[in-house]
Amino acid sequence: MTKTILLKNRPEGKPTTNDFEFVTDDSELTVNKGELLLETAYVSVDPYLRGRMSDAKSYVPPFELNKAIQSGVIAKVISSKNDNFNEGDYVSGMLDWKTKQISSGDGLNKVDPSKAPLSAYLGILGMTGLTAYCGLTEIGKPKEGETLVVSGAAGAVGSVVGQIGKLLGLKVIGIAGTDEKIELLKSKFGFDEGINYKTTDNMKEAIAKAAPNGVDVYFDNVGGSISDAVLMNINQFARIVVCGAISVYNSTELPKGLSVQPLLVKNSALMQGFIVSNYSDKFPEAIDKLATWLGDDKLTYSETIVEGFNNLPQAFIDLFDGKNKGKMVVKI
Amino acid sequence: MTKTILLKNRPEGKPTTNDFEFVTDDSELTVNKGELLLETAYVSVDPYLRGRMSDAKSYVPPFELNKAIQSGVIAKVISSKNDNFNEGDYVSGMLDWKTKQISSGDGLNKVDPSKAPLSAYLGILGMTGLTAYCGLTEIGKPKEGETLVVSGAAGAVGSVVGQIGKLLGLKVIGIAGTDEKIELLKSKFGFDEGINYKTTDNMKEAIAKAAPNGVDVYFDNVGGSISDAVLMNINQFARIVVCGAISVYNSTELPKGLSVQPLLVKNSALMQGFIVSNYSDKFPEAIDKLATWLGDDKLTYSETIVEGFNNLPQAFIDLFDGKNKGKMVVKI
Repeated sequence: MTKTILLKNRPEGKPTTNDFEFVTDDSELTVNKGELLLETAYVSVDPYLRGRMSDAKSYVPPFELNKAIQSGVIAKVISSKNDNFNEGDYVSGMLDWKTKQISSGDGLNKVDPSKAPLSAYLGILGMTGLTAYCGLTEIGKPKEGETLVVSGAAGAVGSVVGQIGKLLGLKVIGIAGTDEKIELLKSKFGFDEGINYKTTDNMKEAIAKAAPNGVDVYFDNVGGSISDAVLMNINQFARIVVCGAISVYNSTELPKGLSVQPLLVKNSALMQGFIVSNYSDKFPEAIDKLATWLGDDKLTYSETIVEGFNNLPQAFIDLFDGKNKGKMVVKI
Repeated sequence: MTKTILLKNRPEGKPTTNDFEFVTDDSELTVNKGELLLETAYVSVDPYLRGRMSDAKSYVPPFELNKAIQSGVIAKVISSKNDNFNEGDYVSGMLDWKTKQISSGDGLNKVDPSKAPLSAYLGILGMTGLTAYCGLTEIGKPKEGETLVVSGAAGAVGSVVGQIGKLLGLKVIGIAGTDEKIELLKSKFGFDEGINYKTTDNMKEAIAKAAPNGVDVYFDNVGGSISDAVLMNINQFARIVVCGAISVYNSTELPKGLSVQPLLVKNSALMQGFIVSNYSDKFPEAIDKLATWLGDDKLTYSETIVEGFNNLPQAFIDLFDGKNKGKMVVKI
C-alpha cells in the first residue's frame, strides 16, 4: 500500500490541512530496468514550499493541483535495477510525498548513515547547511571583527549561519520569537546576543544597543518589520543576504514595508536574494567545511522530528507559527 | 565683493528659498603661498545635496548651518601662488557656493575648455557621466540583448545611462514625467520606449508591455511607487542599480513601499546602492570611454543652464519639480 499527499487547493494565506489530500493506492509498484523502488524514511518541510503552492511566477514552477507535493527526502532503496544503487542504500533527493515510490535515480545522492544521522542529510549536511554556508560566505562576505545579525536565528538555517559567523570571527546577534529560543541561541549555538522581537517594543533601538558598531552583514530569513529595524542600523558597504521572507509568505496582498532604496544609497549597501542552487559549484567545498566542523564538534544543530506520514501537512503548517526549533523533519 | 550662500535652516520636506541665506563680504581675498584665488564660472545643483541639508547619518557629513553650501563647481584661476595651476586655468572640484574663493588646490582638477564646453565637466564628463557609466557597468553588468529600464530617464544621469545601454546593445525603456521628456528620450537619446508615469494608470502593466521579455537591469534614480512597479517585472538574476531616490528625499517620515525582499528571493536578484566615489579606480577608463563616445557623436546630453548666482537656490529646488531637462547647472 502506498500513501500519497496531494495538493488539493492553492492556500489562501496560511495553509490549512484542508489544502492537502491523502490518497491510498494498493497496486504493486513495478521496478523496470534502470529504476529503483524507494521507501521514504525522512521528509523535509521547508517554508519555501509555500511559494510552490501558489501559482505565482517564481524560481521553481508551482506544484500542480491534485499531484503529489515534493520536497527533500531521505529514502531507503528497497530494490534496485539501477547499477548505481544497491538494495539497502540510503539516498537523498527531491522526491514525492509518498511512502513508497519508483525513481530513475536521476538527481539522487547516496548518504552514509554511519557518518551522521540520516536526518542530518536534510539539514546541516543538506540544503539547510548549504544555504547557510553559501549565502553567508558568497553574498555576506563576512570579515573577522564585523557584526552579523541573523533573523529567524533559531531556525534551521539561522542557527547554522550564526555558528559559522562565530567560527569566522564575527560578533553575532540573533533575532527570534521566544525567550526559550533566545536562551538556546546563546547557550547552544554561541551567539553573542539575542533579541526576542515579540517582547521588544523598539526593535531599531534594541539592535542599535546590541550592535554598537552597526550591522555589517544581515542574514535575513524573515523580511517584514524585523528587517526594517535591522536595515535602519546598517553600516556603509553592508551586505544583506536575503534568504527568505517567512513573515510575508502567507500575505494575500503585496506586503508593504520600509522603502529600502534610500538606505541602500546612503550606505552603498548591497541586498541580494538567492536560492542555494545558484551556488551549486560551491557545494563540494561547503559540504567538506560543514562535515569537518561537525566532526570537530565546532558545529551543532537542532532538529524537530515529527513522527508519522499523516502528520506531514501539519508539520509544514507549524513552520509558520515557529513551532520548530531548528530543522523540521518528518520521520515516516 | 564676494557673495556666499549659506544653509540657514535644515529644510522640512521640500526646501524653500527661506532655507538659504545670501551674505556679502567686501573684504579683499588674500592669496597665500600654495593657494589660488578662484572665480566661480558654473555651479552644479544635484538631488543628493538634499541629503546633506538634513543632519541624518549619511555617506557624506551634513552641511553645517550658517556655513556655505558646497557642490561641484567649475572655476577660473584669477591668481595663483600654487605651482600646479596658472592664472587663466579652469578647474573643477567640490567648492563653496561663493562667487570667489581661496583654495589650496587640493581636490581640484584642470579642465580643458577647448575640448568640451565648461559645463560638460559638471555633467557628462563629470560626476553625472561617471555615475551613469560606473553604476551601469559595475553593478548593472549589462549584457547585449538584455532589457534595461531607467527611471528619471530624462534627468542628467538617466539620459546618459540610456544611451550607454543602447551603445552596449540593450533594449532601453525610460520612465519620465512629461510627454515632452518622453519625446526627447526617443528622438534625442535613442531610447526604444518611454513611459510617462504621470499619465499612466497602471505602471506595472505598462512596463510589462514595454518589456515583454522582463527587466534584466533597472537603473533607479527615483525610488517610490515607480520602482515598485518596475520591481514587479524583474527577471531571474536581475540587477537593480540604486542610484538615487529623489521621489522620497523630501519625505519627513520614513517612506514606505513594496517589501522588496520576497521579489529579490524569488528572482535571485541583486539591489546595490552606491555613490560614484566607490568606483574612483574606474574613473580614468570611464572618462576615456565617455570622451571617445562624445567625440564620435555617439553620445549627446541635455543641460538646463540657469543664469545668475542669485538663482542658485531656486535652481536646486526646481530639481524636485523636474523642471530640468538633463544636467542642471547655474552659470555665474
